Amino acid sequence: MEIAHNFMGPGATKTMLRINENGNVVGSIIVNCEGFPETTTLDSLTAATYSNHMRNLSHHASNALKEIDVTDELTVLRLVSRKSEAVVAPDSEFHIIVVMRRH
Amino acid sequence: MEIAHNFMGPGATKTMLRINENGNVVGSIIVNCEGFPETTTLDSLTAATYSNHMRNLSHHASNALKEIDVTDELTVLRLVSRKSEAVVAPDSEFHIIVVMRRH
Repeated sequence: MEIAHNFMGPGATKTMLRINENGNVVGSIIVNCEGFPETTTLDSLTAATYSNHMRNLSHHASNALKEIDVTDELTVLRLVSRKSEAVVAPDSEFHIIVVMRRH
Repeated sequence: MEIAHNFMGPGATKTMLRINENGNVVGSIIVNCEGFPETTTLDSLTAATYSNHMRNLSHHASNALKEIDVTDELTVLRLVSRKSEAVVAPDSEFHIIVVMRRH
Protein backbone atom coordinates (compact mmCIF):
# COMPACT_ATOMS: atom_id res chain seq x y z
CA MET A 1 0.00 0.00 0.00
CA GLU A 2 1.45 3.35 -1.03
CA ILE A 3 1.63 6.21 1.47
CA ALA A 4 0.79 9.49 -0.24
CA HIS A 5 1.56 13.11 0.70
CA ASN A 6 3.94 12.31 3.51
CA PHE A 7 5.22 15.45 5.23
CA MET A 8 5.48 13.71 8.58
CA GLY A 9 8.82 11.96 8.85
CA PRO A 10 9.84 8.31 9.26
CA GLY A 11 8.07 7.75 12.62
CA ALA A 12 4.63 8.35 11.14
CA THR A 13 5.45 6.27 8.03
CA LYS A 14 6.57 3.35 10.20
CA THR A 15 3.39 3.51 12.34
CA MET A 16 1.16 3.64 9.27
CA LEU A 17 2.97 0.73 7.63
CA ARG A 18 2.54 -1.30 10.84
CA ILE A 19 -1.20 -0.52 10.96
CA ASN A 20 -1.66 -1.32 7.28
CA GLU A 21 0.00 -4.72 7.72
CA ASN A 22 -3.22 -5.84 9.42
CA GLY A 23 -5.26 -7.65 6.76
CA ASN A 24 -8.54 -6.00 7.77
CA VAL A 25 -7.25 -2.45 7.35
CA VAL A 26 -8.48 -0.70 4.19
CA GLY A 27 -6.42 2.42 4.84
CA SER A 28 -5.31 4.96 7.40
CA ILE A 29 -5.15 8.76 7.53
CA ILE A 30 -3.19 11.14 9.73
CA VAL A 31 -5.16 14.39 10.10
CA ASN A 32 -3.55 17.62 11.35
CA CYS A 33 -5.10 19.98 13.89
CA GLU A 34 -6.68 22.01 11.08
CA GLY A 35 -8.60 18.96 9.87
CA PHE A 36 -6.62 18.28 6.70
CA PRO A 37 -5.13 14.87 5.87
CA GLU A 38 -1.31 14.95 6.20
CA THR A 39 -0.57 11.37 5.24
CA THR A 40 -2.84 8.67 3.90
CA THR A 41 -2.94 5.28 2.21
CA LEU A 42 -6.42 6.00 0.82
CA ASP A 43 -7.28 8.06 -2.27
CA SER A 44 -7.49 11.82 -1.69
CA LEU A 45 -11.29 12.11 -1.94
CA THR A 46 -11.99 9.26 0.49
CA ALA A 47 -9.31 10.58 2.86
CA ALA A 48 -10.81 14.09 2.78
CA THR A 49 -14.35 12.79 3.39
CA TYR A 50 -13.30 10.60 6.33
CA SER A 51 -11.04 13.34 7.78
CA ASN A 52 -13.83 15.86 7.75
CA HIS A 53 -16.53 13.61 9.23
CA MET A 54 -14.43 11.74 11.77
CA ARG A 55 -12.83 14.93 13.04
CA ASN A 56 -16.25 16.56 13.53
CA LEU A 57 -17.57 13.45 15.25
CA SER A 58 -14.62 13.13 17.62
CA HIS A 59 -14.99 16.84 18.42
CA HIS A 60 -18.69 16.35 19.26
CA ALA A 61 -17.91 13.21 21.27
CA SER A 62 -15.18 15.01 23.19
CA ASN A 63 -17.53 17.88 24.06
CA ALA A 64 -20.26 15.46 25.15
CA LEU A 65 -17.80 13.63 27.40
CA LYS A 66 -16.67 16.90 28.97
CA GLU A 67 -20.30 17.68 29.78
CA ILE A 68 -20.68 14.31 31.53
CA ASP A 69 -17.33 14.55 33.37
CA VAL A 70 -15.10 17.58 32.82
CA THR A 71 -11.94 15.68 33.86
CA ASP A 72 -12.51 12.92 31.31
CA GLU A 73 -10.86 12.76 27.88
CA LEU A 74 -11.76 10.94 24.64
CA THR A 75 -9.28 8.18 23.73
CA VAL A 76 -10.92 6.37 20.83
CA LEU A 77 -14.13 6.74 18.83
CA ARG A 78 -15.23 3.66 16.90
CA LEU A 79 -17.96 3.57 14.25
CA VAL A 80 -19.15 0.12 13.29
CA SER A 81 -21.41 -0.07 10.24
CA ARG A 82 -22.83 -2.97 8.24
CA LYS A 83 -20.01 -2.72 5.69
CA SER A 84 -17.01 -1.26 7.49
CA GLU A 85 -15.48 -0.02 10.70
CA ALA A 86 -13.76 3.33 11.25
CA VAL A 87 -11.68 4.25 14.29
CA VAL A 88 -10.39 7.70 15.22
CA ALA A 89 -7.81 8.29 17.96
CA PRO A 90 -7.71 12.04 18.66
CA ASP A 91 -4.68 13.85 19.98
CA SER A 92 -3.92 17.54 20.50
CA GLU A 93 -1.73 17.79 17.40
CA PHE A 94 -2.79 14.94 15.12
CA HIS A 95 -5.70 12.53 14.78
CA ILE A 96 -5.22 9.09 13.31
CA ILE A 97 -8.12 7.49 11.45
CA VAL A 98 -8.13 3.81 10.50
CA VAL A 99 -10.74 2.36 8.12
CA MET A 100 -11.29 -1.40 8.32
CA ARG A 101 -13.48 -3.95 6.58
CA ARG A 102 -15.90 -5.98 8.72
CA HIS A 103 -14.75 -9.55 9.33
CA MET B 1 -29.18 -3.25 40.02
CA GLU B 2 -32.70 -1.83 39.90
CA ILE B 3 -34.39 -1.13 36.59
CA ALA B 4 -36.34 2.12 36.79
CA HIS B 5 -39.23 3.49 34.71
CA ASN B 6 -39.91 0.30 32.81
CA PHE B 7 -42.71 0.72 30.29
CA MET B 8 -41.17 -1.80 27.91
CA GLY B 9 -42.26 -5.29 28.89
CA PRO B 10 -40.39 -8.42 29.99
CA GLY B 11 -38.22 -8.77 26.82
CA ALA B 12 -36.45 -5.48 27.45
CA THR B 13 -36.07 -6.16 31.17
CA LYS B 14 -34.49 -9.56 30.42
CA THR B 15 -32.03 -8.04 27.94
CA MET B 16 -31.04 -5.28 30.36
CA LEU B 17 -30.56 -7.74 33.22
CA ARG B 18 -28.34 -9.89 30.94
CA ILE B 19 -26.22 -6.84 29.97
CA ASN B 20 -25.95 -5.66 33.57
CA GLU B 21 -24.69 -9.07 34.68
CA ASN B 22 -21.37 -8.16 33.04
CA GLY B 23 -19.13 -6.88 35.82
CA ASN B 24 -17.79 -3.97 33.76
CA VAL B 25 -21.23 -2.52 33.04
CA VAL B 26 -22.07 0.60 35.08
CA GLY B 27 -25.58 0.86 33.66
CA SER B 28 -27.71 0.71 30.55
CA ILE B 29 -30.44 2.87 29.04
CA ILE B 30 -33.12 2.17 26.45
CA VAL B 31 -33.93 5.39 24.58
CA ASN B 32 -37.09 5.81 22.50
CA CYS B 33 -37.24 7.39 19.04
CA GLU B 34 -37.97 10.78 20.60
CA GLY B 35 -34.71 10.68 22.54
CA PHE B 36 -36.14 10.07 26.00
CA PRO B 37 -34.97 7.24 28.28
CA GLU B 38 -37.64 4.53 28.56
CA THR B 39 -35.84 2.17 30.89
CA THR B 40 -32.58 2.56 32.77
CA THR B 41 -30.44 1.18 35.55
CA LEU B 42 -28.71 4.57 36.00
CA ASP B 43 -30.03 7.58 37.90
CA SER B 44 -32.41 9.84 35.95
CA LEU B 45 -29.98 12.73 35.44
CA THR B 46 -27.10 10.55 34.19
CA ALA B 47 -29.52 8.63 31.96
CA ALA B 48 -30.92 11.86 30.48
CA THR B 49 -27.43 13.29 29.83
CA TYR B 50 -26.18 10.11 28.13
CA SER B 51 -29.44 9.70 26.16
CA ASN B 52 -29.23 13.20 24.79
CA HIS B 53 -25.53 13.13 23.84
CA MET B 54 -25.31 9.57 22.57
CA ARG B 55 -28.45 9.96 20.46
CA ASN B 56 -27.09 13.15 18.86
CA LEU B 57 -23.74 11.50 18.24
CA SER B 58 -25.21 8.38 16.66
CA HIS B 59 -27.39 10.63 14.50
CA HIS B 60 -24.31 12.56 13.31
CA ALA B 61 -22.37 9.34 12.79
CA SER B 62 -25.22 7.85 10.80
CA ASN B 63 -25.42 10.91 8.55
CA ALA B 64 -21.63 10.91 8.03
CA LEU B 65 -21.74 7.23 7.05
CA LYS B 66 -24.56 7.88 4.56
CA GLU B 67 -22.40 10.57 2.94
CA ILE B 68 -19.52 8.10 2.55
CA ASP B 69 -21.74 5.24 1.32
CA VAL B 70 -25.49 5.77 1.00
CA THR B 71 -26.23 2.03 1.28
CA ASP B 72 -24.34 1.66 4.56
CA GLU B 73 -25.95 1.69 8.02
CA LEU B 74 -24.58 2.39 11.52
CA THR B 75 -24.55 -0.67 13.78
CA VAL B 76 -22.60 0.45 16.84
CA LEU B 77 -20.92 3.64 18.01
CA ARG B 78 -18.33 3.22 20.76
CA LEU B 79 -16.77 6.06 22.76
CA VAL B 80 -13.70 5.11 24.74
CA SER B 81 -12.46 7.69 27.24
CA ARG B 82 -9.79 7.61 29.94
CA LYS B 83 -12.36 6.77 32.61
CA SER B 84 -15.20 4.95 30.91
CA GLU B 85 -16.60 3.44 27.75
CA ALA B 86 -20.04 4.11 26.27
CA VAL B 87 -21.65 2.10 23.48
CA VAL B 88 -24.79 2.97 21.55
CA ALA B 89 -26.56 0.53 19.26
CA PRO B 90 -29.12 2.51 17.24
CA ASP B 91 -32.30 1.04 15.82
CA SER B 92 -35.32 2.59 14.09
CA GLU B 93 -37.54 2.38 17.18
CA PHE B 94 -35.17 2.22 20.17
CA HIS B 95 -31.51 2.87 20.91
CA ILE B 96 -29.70 0.96 23.61
CA ILE B 97 -26.85 2.69 25.45
CA VAL B 98 -24.45 0.78 27.68
CA VAL B 99 -21.98 2.58 29.97
CA MET B 100 -18.97 0.58 31.12
CA ARG B 101 -15.94 1.18 33.31
CA ARG B 102 -12.51 0.80 31.71
CA HIS B 103 -10.71 -2.40 32.68
